[in-house]
Amino acid sequence: MKTMASELFSEFREHSVSEFFRKNAAMLGYTGKIRSLTTIVHEGVTNAIDASEEIGVLPSVQVAIKKMNDSPEHFKVVIEDNASGIPEKYIPDVFGKMLAGTKLHRHMQSRGQQGIGISGGVMFSQITSGKPTKVTTSIGNGEMIQADVMIDVDKNEGKILNEEKSKGDWRGTRVELDVRDVTYVRSRYGPFNYLRMTAIANPHVQITFVEPDGTLTVFERATDKVPPRPKSMPLHPWGIMSDDLLALAKHTKSRTVTGFLVAELSRVTKAKIKEVQKLSGIDLNKKPSELTWEDAEKIVSAFKQTKFMAPPTEGLRPIGAADIENGMRQILKPEFAYAITRSPKVYRGGLPFVVETGIAHGGAAGKSADEAEGEEGETGGLELIRFANRAPLIFDQGGCAINAAVRSIDWRRYGVDTAAAPVTLFVNVVSAYVPYTSAGKQSIADDPEVLEEIRAAIMDVARELRQYLYRKIRTKERQQRAGIFEEYLPVIARKAAHLAGVEVPDIKKLIEKVAGVKVGGKRETPEES
Amino acid sequence: MKTMASELFSEFREHSVSEFFRKNAAMLGYTGKIRSLTTIVHEGVTNAIDASEEIGVLPSVQVAIKKMNDSPEHFKVVIEDNASGIPEKYIPDVFGKMLAGTKLHRHMQSRGQQGIGISGGVMFSQITSGKPTKVTTSIGNGEMIQADVMIDVDKNEGKILNEEKSKGDWRGTRVELDVRDVTYVRSRYGPFNYLRMTAIANPHVQITFVEPDGTLTVFERATDKVPPRPKSMPLHPWGIMSDDLLALAKHTKSRTVTGFLVAELSRVTKAKIKEVQKLSGIDLNKKPSELTWEDAEKIVSAFKQTKFMAPPTEGLRPIGAADIENGMRQILKPEFAYAITRSPKVYRGGLPFVVETGIAHGGAAGKSADEAEGEEGETGGLELIRFANRAPLIFDQGGCAINAAVRSIDWRRYGVDTAAAPVTLFVNVVSAYVPYTSAGKQSIADDPEVLEEIRAAIMDVARELRQYLYRKIRTKERQQRAGIFEEYLPVIARKAAHLAGVEVPDIKKLIEKVAGVKVGGKRETPEES
Repeated sequence: MKTMASELFSEFREHSVSEFFRKNAAMLGYTGKIRSLTTIVHEGVTNAIDASEEIGVLPSVQVAIKKMNDSPEHFKVVIEDNASGIPEKYIPDVFGKMLAGTKLHRHMQSRGQQGIGISGGVMFSQITSGKPTKVTTSIGNGEMIQADVMIDVDKNEGKILNEEKSKGDWRGTRVELDVRDVTYVRSRYGPFNYLRMTAIANPHVQITFVEPDGTLTVFERATDKVPPRPKSMPLHPWGIMSDDLLALAKHTKSRTVTGFLVAELSRVTKAKIKEVQKLSGIDLNKKPSELTWEDAEKIVSAFKQTKFMAPPTEGLRPIGAADIENGMRQILKPEFAYAITRSPKVYRGGLPFVVETGIAHGGAAGKSADEAEGEEGETGGLELIRFANRAPLIFDQGGCAINAAVRSIDWRRYGVDTAAAPVTLFVNVVSAYVPYTSAGKQSIADDPEVLEEIRAAIMDVARELRQYLYRKIRTKERQQRAGIFEEYLPVIARKAAHLAGVEVPDIKKLIEKVAGVKVGGKRETPEES
Repeated sequence: MKTMASELFSEFREHSVSEFFRKNAAMLGYTGKIRSLTTIVHEGVTNAIDASEEIGVLPSVQVAIKKMNDSPEHFKVVIEDNASGIPEKYIPDVFGKMLAGTKLHRHMQSRGQQGIGISGGVMFSQITSGKPTKVTTSIGNGEMIQADVMIDVDKNEGKILNEEKSKGDWRGTRVELDVRDVTYVRSRYGPFNYLRMTAIANPHVQITFVEPDGTLTVFERATDKVPPRPKSMPLHPWGIMSDDLLALAKHTKSRTVTGFLVAELSRVTKAKIKEVQKLSGIDLNKKPSELTWEDAEKIVSAFKQTKFMAPPTEGLRPIGAADIENGMRQILKPEFAYAITRSPKVYRGGLPFVVETGIAHGGAAGKSADEAEGEEGETGGLELIRFANRAPLIFDQGGCAINAAVRSIDWRRYGVDTAAAPVTLFVNVVSAYVPYTSAGKQSIADDPEVLEEIRAAIMDVARELRQYLYRKIRTKERQQRAGIFEEYLPVIARKAAHLAGVEVPDIKKLIEKVAGVKVGGKRETPEES
């Protein structure tokens, strides 16, 4: 009998995380020729904008996709930013090591958060074309570094193949990825629409895009205001689990539990610590390393019984209603547009988030690029554009909480025929902890509190649309009524005056009063709110 | 300027894969109180069945979920199998190291394939309850090992806390996980339905289940035939990319490229190698380690121009139409059931897969447990049950290719009102390389060839259902017609005979002829095919 197990376990192996994602590239969004190319662009642009914002610089991102001559499915993708640049010693890790980065351990709102993205792009490029990624970077010290980077998937490590240094007065990073087995299309799922959506949600970013056929598009920035720099947002005591507490305790520099709790959590003051000490019965002057699971459970339980200020939300960086509305007006030229930014909410006890929604009616709203180009997908009507921390969510709509919220609404009550109405709905979920369903980060998990808040935010703008549509109908009716009066009242007045042998009276004022419109003036149009 | 980069990169860190999944547990299916519990059961049962099949043993799996008294959301989950048992030295890695296992590097059809599953369960248990997982195992050598296992997430390593050995004549593994923050419900998304669906698709498995309230359910095995042991299925030359080839070359034991290609790929013979050598112009007698990317590209290109036998499919282990039909009949008691197993197909050039579908009408078909228990979800009508390699897919239906295939079909053409019809549709996708969309493995990516084949397989059974429904209507009409004749013809015959002064004739035969039914006999019921 022993042979069964020993035979089976002779096959026991361990894989690196790179090898795992090499085999399961679909989990990172590398599935299909169109989506794979868009994913590469997404990873590069996400990093570029995050890096610029972190150092408080107005992001200028240049993207170019060049067709290579040897195959219709071979492209070069170039993405250049004006951010901090990358110090030489970090180049292999930034581009060649998955689960490594500057953002993954800090609790703050950013587009990336896993330290996988751009390494995934380097890997996809390497497994399709066999070529390294060319990185050019300078931290602004007059020295430019050019390096060719590949990933050693067995070890999850970056390798530098060639490196050259030169003089140059420039700061930023330029990445050049050589990719095969991808297709360029200008559909909803392609890079053009991805960048267009990025521009809508990031009015402070200038994006220059050169398509394979040479077409140059500049998405100009609509504001010169750099969003506030992302802030680290410590966990709130209500959003923490015993295991989180022990994980934090393991890595803290504080020497007592009290010091540690005050330093590492938000809203925890020394006065509150006294309450917690009393409730938990634990000596909080001991070393953090001495905390046991039982201690942690008691502390977490004491937290729940203690009143703290709500989690800080000043680190959240929504786009703002005005900018969403402007963005929609600029791109969609609608008859009506309206947007809101809801006040911050909390899920799972202590994780703050904000939902923003916008709605547009008429103009180019509701008409997805799909229909125009005959791609499969929506059949017209309500168009949903989704964002998380301002990054467009283009794929995996079916499993996304935003989609679930949209579907849960009875749109007829808002006067919207979802199959035909020219309506575009914009939703942006903002949080330091967006609960994505997969490493591809294209879909938000349907946590009940998040789902409910998205739903409420959509209904907020839908109500405004209903009012607009109602006013539009009422105005139309009024105009029809006025038309009838305008036509017949003068005739009646004339005939009556004739019969009575008096002069025909001026009945303009009368008509205006009866019909509620100015006669001969401009037709009343429904105001936009 | 230098400070910008150096400040930013002082935050650069690396995470272990365990830490990554600890923070992103939703990606493994740990999202929500109901789903988290079902995911734990899923991981344990998947491992149990895979392990039994690998050693050719009829699987008997015992599952018990016990409520703990201190909290309504605290449970103990026990899963026991009769498989090979685990050798002592592998215990920490099996339960405490992610991306490690016996299945992840072999190309064969199995339920698990990533080496994450049960370690994920141990991790979830540990982060919610702080408790280790109790493992009892014996490889059948008279020695039983009891060990408490935890994960060191910083290092992605298993730690054994207590270990005891004792004498015992038993072979198998028993895992006991202590989980908090979960809920037990008997809905579509709960463990009971998961096990019921597992039983439908695995008629050779016996599952014993004890629910928290003590209810015992035995899902008896319907067949004593162990499915063939899973076979390693080498990649076919048409399904390989240059990068795969180099990855294989790096790890091969063969000393020449020729030997390596013949040994590691399917359908590659020495005769075919000669063609490849001619087409690629590469000396295939060199060492595998000397292969360059360009060589690999030329070989892959030569493969594409060479005729090979289609990929072997004898390693695929579908359930079989008869067993699917039996399973549906046993559980759903329908009026009509029909199933098919399609012949193997290939996607992405060389990855073989098989789709099986079954359809049931009437009885308990189409009525999901949801409705009965008032859970949210389907609103009745067509019920879809999805499987991949016989493992139930319960979650993430929205983004799954099977769901997309179902939605793409115009069901009215098959006489099915999807909102009301009592129809259950069964789909199982079988492959050594199921293209899952995420590590949670609940959804299949919509690769065009896979999607199209699923669609075709569904239409196969839908057509059969249409015929049944058509026959049913026709029979009903015939019976109505017969009813009319039966009623009036005897009267007419009697009156006519009376008038003519003759004896009343026997008109049974006439009625039978006219109405197409036996008079006074059994009503004709539509045959099932």
